[in-house]
Amino acid sequence: MSKEVTSRAADYSQWYNDLVIKGGLADYSAVRGCMVIKPYGFTLWEHMRDALDKMFKDTGHVNAYFPLFIPKSFLSKEAAHVEGFAKECAVVTHYRLKNDPDGKGVVVDPEAKLEEELIVRPTSETIIWSTYKDWIQSYRDLPLLINQWANVVRWEMRTRLFLRTAEFLWQEGHTAHATREEAVEEARKMLEVYATFAEEFMALPVIKGVKTASERFAGAEDTYCIESLMQDGKALQAGTSHFLGQNFAKAFDVKFLNKDNQQEYVWATSWGVSTRLVGALIMAHGDDEGLVLPPRIAPLQAVIIPIYKGPEQKDLIDAKAKEILEDLKSKGIRAKYDDNDNNRPGWKFAEYEMKGVPVRLVLGARDLENHKIEVARRDTREKETVNLDGISQYVDGLLIKIQFEMLQRARKFMEESITKVDTWGDFVKVLDEKGGFVSAHWDGTAETEEAIKEKTKATIRCIPLDNPQEDGVCIFSGKPSKERVLFARAY
Amino acid sequence: MSKEVTSRAADYSQWYNDLVIKGGLADYSAVRGCMVIKPYGFTLWEHMRDALDKMFKDTGHVNAYFPLFIPKSFLSKEAAHVEGFAKECAVVTHYRLKNDPDGKGVVVDPEAKLEEELIVRPTSETIIWSTYKDWIQSYRDLPLLINQWANVVRWEMRTRLFLRTAEFLWQEGHTAHATREEAVEEARKMLEVYATFAEEFMALPVIKGVKTASERFAGAEDTYCIESLMQDGKALQAGTSHFLGQNFAKAFDVKFLNKDNQQEYVWATSWGVSTRLVGALIMAHGDDEGLVLPPRIAPLQAVIIPIYKGPEQKDLIDAKAKEILEDLKSKGIRAKYDDNDNNRPGWKFAEYEMKGVPVRLVLGARDLENHKIEVARRDTREKETVNLDGISQYVDGLLIKIQFEMLQRARKFMEESITKVDTWGDFVKVLDEKGGFVSAHWDGTAETEEAIKEKTKATIRCIPLDNPQEDGVCIFSGKPSKERVLFARAY
Ligand SMILES: [Zn+2]
Ligand SMILES: [Zn+2]
Repeated sequence: MSKEVTSRAADYSQWYNDLVIKGGLADYSAVRGCMVIKPYGFTLWEHMRDALDKMFKDTGHVNAYFPLFIPKSFLSKEAAHVEGFAKECAVVTHYRLKNDPDGKGVVVDPEAKLEEELIVRPTSETIIWSTYKDWIQSYRDLPLLINQWANVVRWEMRTRLFLRTAEFLWQEGHTAHATREEAVEEARKMLEVYATFAEEFMALPVIKGVKTASERFAGAEDTYCIESLMQDGKALQAGTSHFLGQNFAKAFDVKFLNKDNQQEYVWATSWGVSTRLVGALIMAHGDDEGLVLPPRIAPLQAVIIPIYKGPEQKDLIDAKAKEILEDLKSKGIRAKYDDNDNNRPGWKFAEYEMKGVPVRLVLGARDLENHKIEVARRDTREKETVNLDGISQYVDGLLIKIQFEMLQRARKFMEESITKVDTWGDFVKVLDEKGGFVSAHWDGTAETEEAIKEKTKATIRCIPLDNPQEDGVCIFSGKPSKERVLFARAY
Repeated sequence: MSKEVTSRAADYSQWYNDLVIKGGLADYSAVRGCMVIKPYGFTLWEHMRDALDKMFKDTGHVNAYFPLFIPKSFLSKEAAHVEGFAKECAVVTHYRLKNDPDGKGVVVDPEAKLEEELIVRPTSETIIWSTYKDWIQSYRDLPLLINQWANVVRWEMRTRLFLRTAEFLWQEGHTAHATREEAVEEARKMLEVYATFAEEFMALPVIKGVKTASERFAGAEDTYCIESLMQDGKALQAGTSHFLGQNFAKAFDVKFLNKDNQQEYVWATSWGVSTRLVGALIMAHGDDEGLVLPPRIAPLQAVIIPIYKGPEQKDLIDAKAKEILEDLKSKGIRAKYDDNDNNRPGWKFAEYEMKGVPVRLVLGARDLENHKIEVARRDTREKETVNLDGISQYVDGLLIKIQFEMLQRARKFMEESITKVDTWGDFVKVLDEKGGFVSAHWDGTAETEEAIKEKTKATIRCIPLDNPQEDGVCIFSGKPSKERVLFARAY
């Protein structure tokens, strides 16, 4: 069969690619590093986007849209920011092509050179704060709580579908506040929104924390993050929320008249999640049969497949299946009846397993006689035979159950994958043999952090929020430490 | 008052800009030709987008996402297409910046030159059809009914907010079919969707037609369009739907095995509307007081403004206003209670008129005593005093009435602005003195079309669908003609 998936044990990375491509989520494109998000993958993203968008609006945010292009000089205005972002980016230098005088095709018109190059946005702090300068005069204009859904480009040399692509889709919130406290509160609030979204919609448990100085966003004073764990024991940063202090306000001279009638720089946050989350979803839940999608965001939640011999049986099954389909739809369940004659039932079973459809209903002639239907869960692959009466209600409940149990299993896996170690030997051993998060004492210096990264490829994923204070010694330097931090190898 | 609007009579073009900027829809940006869509404008666009997206899905389409960048060589593959699009576009030539060795800031790294330049998509036929080649093998893979919501860039030298900007937002449908008939039917079906959307949501009546050969989309066999009329008598193309024949299939070698087991080129359509529609909306309905927005897509449908003296009156009015607000919201009405103390009622009246909020409710102390409230319509500026009982139901009905009457008025204006003429003298006179659409005989040649355009700046907007056949002579050349076409000066 053509849709065979490489097993996780055989080649985890190939398994991931198989799921993306054979599951119909995305494809490579003719443009290096850019992908095509196929309809099935885009519908998944739409459900994630719509859920997030509602959460943003429920917390008082509005959407807007800022230019795709950023004047080159803007990137240099915030010193740390330019170091982090200006390097690998798409640069627009010309605004016209002309017919090739030497033959066919078109060439860049050398006379249409831009005076100042434009950068395709890798993130929008600079263009947005240059705009906020015009929008903010007084404390009455604050807070500004704005989000943007957009495409961004970062020229990655090694790309992977969804996880790291030159162009990707994301949302970026950019808020402006009158006080430090309010901005910090906003950054933390949006981290909570992300954590809630990951757990409730993606069935993806996360650890909330704050990054060390070396792992901070370029231009941030603090970067909060949610970290998740993939099945191969590697961590994946699922979202970040930055407290930017007054850095961008100072870079773009954005001041406001405060209540005491004094000019003050504005306080900022930014926060974002991207189509990278789709990659996290795949790796957190997929199995060797294909995708396993959480019901709340699955493009298709239930599929009905008929099994029949001859047109008489087909007519009877068709009638009942269509009735069930309407019942499911009337309950708001995204359902489909696949009566396509070109494919055999076995092919369909494999196809919908590959696509991770949470519930499969199989209706055969004998089932119909017995007033029963076979119900299969994608996540556990359990099958049972259920009475046809109230089947749509049964499926409705089952979808909720699956969503809940997927989160529970993922949480159990994550909790079992956090290992406390107190020596360098154990640290290396756990990283190599078990993987997951390693909770260890660290002396708080960037030098130690860097040395550990060089020796083990493990980075400090975060210092968990509300981290218990505990005296100890750094596993690497032996110097005193007051708390443990979470290390892991990461995507 | 700072928000004064230039009148249409004084300077129509300045009036338009005033409405966009003072109405809070959009702003110029630091990047030449690009605009910032502000939250109020973006919410309007979201409502338009969501309504269209639902109509697309209801007609069987799905969304996907294709790369922002198009390899330069792709543009040359369809001969007509490259003539139309390759000229004014943003060209990415490099993928890295580096620190300026001579000073501060960053410069383009000459070592990071792309082997083949990338064009920021001006439209996506080429990248999409290069992808469809991999997706289509047999008639079983057809039709492909895909839409994309995206940003596109066309390097315009003279730009106007919403109407013509270097970057704009749009949707582009790209469908693939097994037969010519099915593709033509799709192109016409989507034209109907656009017409229905314009009339039912934007209260914008349109004429459905087909473009002449010279006005066709670059690469199309037929371009269907909806044409609308602005208050200054100029036409505005509000949407286009193209039957592309097999042009892109041939350019990208996309064939399928048909039911007779033979290889055949795939038939195509593409269709799009953009943020330009926001410009149409403004010019179709706005008045000298500001925006006038149709209720179905207005970001805010009703606003309640309190008028009181002293805290006792305020408490009473507050309580009632909040009750009304909740009632309105429970009916799904987008409503707001503006009790901001910083602004006086008169300022608020002007502000919400400027923003085109369809219904204003004013609650004063005497109203409250009389159990009444003042209701003002934005479109007609009529005021009436209404009993507080059932006020939310009253507003609900009034919003429907306003939506309906806005369309009726616009339709009446458009119908009165179609003038039949039979001589060159009348043609020029009507264009200069009355404007609007001029229905006239044309000999069917591109030469005449071009000559008329040069002399009068009027173009053939379309040949209406189901155009009555009628013998006549061309107003310009005197040659025989079998039908009238619609001329106008246009945006
Ligand atoms: Zn959906
Ligand atoms: Zn809305």
